[in-house]
Amino acid sequence: MTRVAVVGGGQLARMMAPAATAMGVTLRVLCESSEASAALAAHETVVGLPGDAEAIRALLAEPRPDVVTWEHEHIPADVFALAAQEGIPARPGASALLYARDKIEMRERLAALGLPMPAWRLVTTEDEVEEFLAVHGGVGVLKTAMGGYDGKGVRIVRSPDEADEWLAAAADGGPRLLIEEKVAYDREVAIQVARRPSGEMRAWPLVESIQRDGVCAEVIAPAPDLTPAMQAEAERIARLVATQLDVTGVLAVEMFDVGGLLLINELAMRPHNSGHWTIEGTVTSQFEQHLRAVLDWPLGDTAALAPVTAMANVLGGSREVLETAWHAMPDPGAKVHLYGKGMRQGRKLGHVTVMGESLDDVRKRAVEAATWIRDGESS
Amino acid sequence: MTRVAVVGGGQLARMMAPAATAMGVTLRVLCESSEASAALAAHETVVGLPGDAEAIRALLAEPRPDVVTWEHEHIPADVFALAAQEGIPARPGASALLYARDKIEMRERLAALGLPMPAWRLVTTEDEVEEFLAVHGGVGVLKTAMGGYDGKGVRIVRSPDEADEWLAAAADGGPRLLIEEKVAYDREVAIQVARRPSGEMRAWPLVESIQRDGVCAEVIAPAPDLTPAMQAEAERIARLVATQLDVTGVLAVEMFDVGGLLLINELAMRPHNSGHWTIEGTVTSQFEQHLRAVLDWPLGDTAALAPVTAMANVLGGSREVLETAWHAMPDPGAKVHLYGKGMRQGRKLGHVTVMGESLDDVRKRAVEAATWIRDGESS
Repeated sequence: MTRVAVVGGGQLARMMAPAATAMGVTLRVLCESSEASAALAAHETVVGLPGDAEAIRALLAEPRPDVVTWEHEHIPADVFALAAQEGIPARPGASALLYARDKIEMRERLAALGLPMPAWRLVTTEDEVEEFLAVHGGVGVLKTAMGGYDGKGVRIVRSPDEADEWLAAAADGGPRLLIEEKVAYDREVAIQVARRPSGEMRAWPLVESIQRDGVCAEVIAPAPDLTPAMQAEAERIARLVATQLDVTGVLAVEMFDVGGLLLINELAMRPHNSGHWTIEGTVTSQFEQHLRAVLDWPLGDTAALAPVTAMANVLGGSREVLETAWHAMPDPGAKVHLYGKGMRQGRKLGHVTVMGESLDDVRKRAVEAATWIRDGESS
Repeated sequence: MTRVAVVGGGQLARMMAPAATAMGVTLRVLCESSEASAALAAHETVVGLPGDAEAIRALLAEPRPDVVTWEHEHIPADVFALAAQEGIPARPGASALLYARDKIEMRERLAALGLPMPAWRLVTTEDEVEEFLAVHGGVGVLKTAMGGYDGKGVRIVRSPDEADEWLAAAADGGPRLLIEEKVAYDREVAIQVARRPSGEMRAWPLVESIQRDGVCAEVIAPAPDLTPAMQAEAERIARLVATQLDVTGVLAVEMFDVGGLLLINELAMRPHNSGHWTIEGTVTSQFEQHLRAVLDWPLGDTAALAPVTAMANVLGGSREVLETAWHAMPDPGAKVHLYGKGMRQGRKLGHVTVMGESLDDVRKRAVEAATWIRDGESS
């Protein structure tokens, strides 16, 4: 019996479970609580935090998992040490994960590889911020190197004093800071590639992701007007990153599309919101592929099943509405995924996928269904 | 929180779990043992048999399920009584289920509805068998009214003495017997329809099922050369059966295609092997639709996602081979479903689905992948 251990009990671990079930793989998940999103679907649940050695020992205990993987990048070094001690492969490894956790390490490494990205620099003082703003049109994107997500840890600055507070926090032992040029992009896009330890890779089509308030609201797959040349360039970047950083499992590369030029924005080394469309939309979902890749099994076909697929996130809303009223949502073709999470303003509580022939149609339907599910009625 | 209770821990209950997870529905399954196929994937597991009142009480206990359903037809009357006592709807109901459990009741009811089927009669004596054979070309299909499946409880007879043993068993309190004409059919086909208590129905495309040794080996969807007229006739039959027999949930109608004439062979009131292709092959799978239907929720779209889909069963094989070697199966587009069941000659241990444009191609690939998985190598 093959068994995969997962650290993190959010929706990403939850959505690995159906793929594991189909493949006859037992999924053991470390959940923060028995109410965590993944706890419902996990085949075996261990309750605890990644920093709790006792919980990690339980996660890796007999019957022993064949591999341990993650649904987020915040994995303490001790977890890798304990896995090594038990002889259980940890994928992706600590050396790769660093680049998905620390934006300064990531930028330095990508620069060394000659990969395209926005201008940037590490900043520790107001003077450095001022210098950067002076040569980049008076505006920049200040970021914490670690701990940011969904618009958190990111701030647009137009003068050095707007960086004051964060600089002080960094000087006081908080996360280091970097500043990046504010790219005048046409759109945000993302590509995912899966890579096995033995080297096999498979990429999905490039997608467009539409953000609202710093949070992914919609994904269109493939990205509208995707040319073979842009797909090839996106794949080249993703494959180079995966290989050079020794990523195993699924890698998402979020990029800015600036008139056809692709600039790397962020990396994620796990299933990613930009790939939720693959559950219904491609032959092999990102969740199945992640399990295959970390197990070093042959990868599945990543071809799309419809001309266009749209995914819309259910952002916020009341849990009660979600759990009692969503099913009256009137679109019989909208595929609904609920995460069983408590309410918080703007939080991702689920998503909807619609496949079809017409971009406008599937996009409209996905957004309408997601709105309906959130509000329990049509908008 | 919506909760569905299921009696029966086989692969049909197992494959309901992913659909339940996506919809935020908690699936509680009564499994014969903690090693049952569904036990891995069920959100809540109760170990026990359908005839054990204590187990049924646990299945229906707080937090109370919204509905109780089945993955097979052999549900004792006590289960319905206990559900009624608790005020929990049981779907499909006992009066419908009878016709899926007892072939004589089914034939009598279908005859009353004027539905097309093979010639048949109830038999209790050799004389009655002889009479039937005399007017049907000297050959008939003897069946036990109850308890048959996958070729069991079915016997071709060419003389009354071949019915001896079964007639004696029936006279001795065993299942009643019927004899049917041996139809010279062109192929076997099946259609599924889902029906809600409130009356809404949705049908999937008619499929061809290819049997070997009385067991379903392959399903081709849609059935090759399916005409709108044949789809309409199949839907008419299935909708009439579902409505008149007050079926709720998913109904499968297995039929013989005799030069375009459809004759009803069997009924199943649950997800069915002939519908496994819908997991990947249609917008809404039979498993999701069954849950929606028994919950009286709006039904999902049943449209196919590819021109042709082929499903092949993994019949027999060693569990060890299945669990260690299957993933090296070389077709990246073959979708694999393993049931986590122990080995038994000819037993359904999993299935494979392949979608595509060409009937010959997808059929060949599905069969090759299923053979590979069973044998751990190419044939």
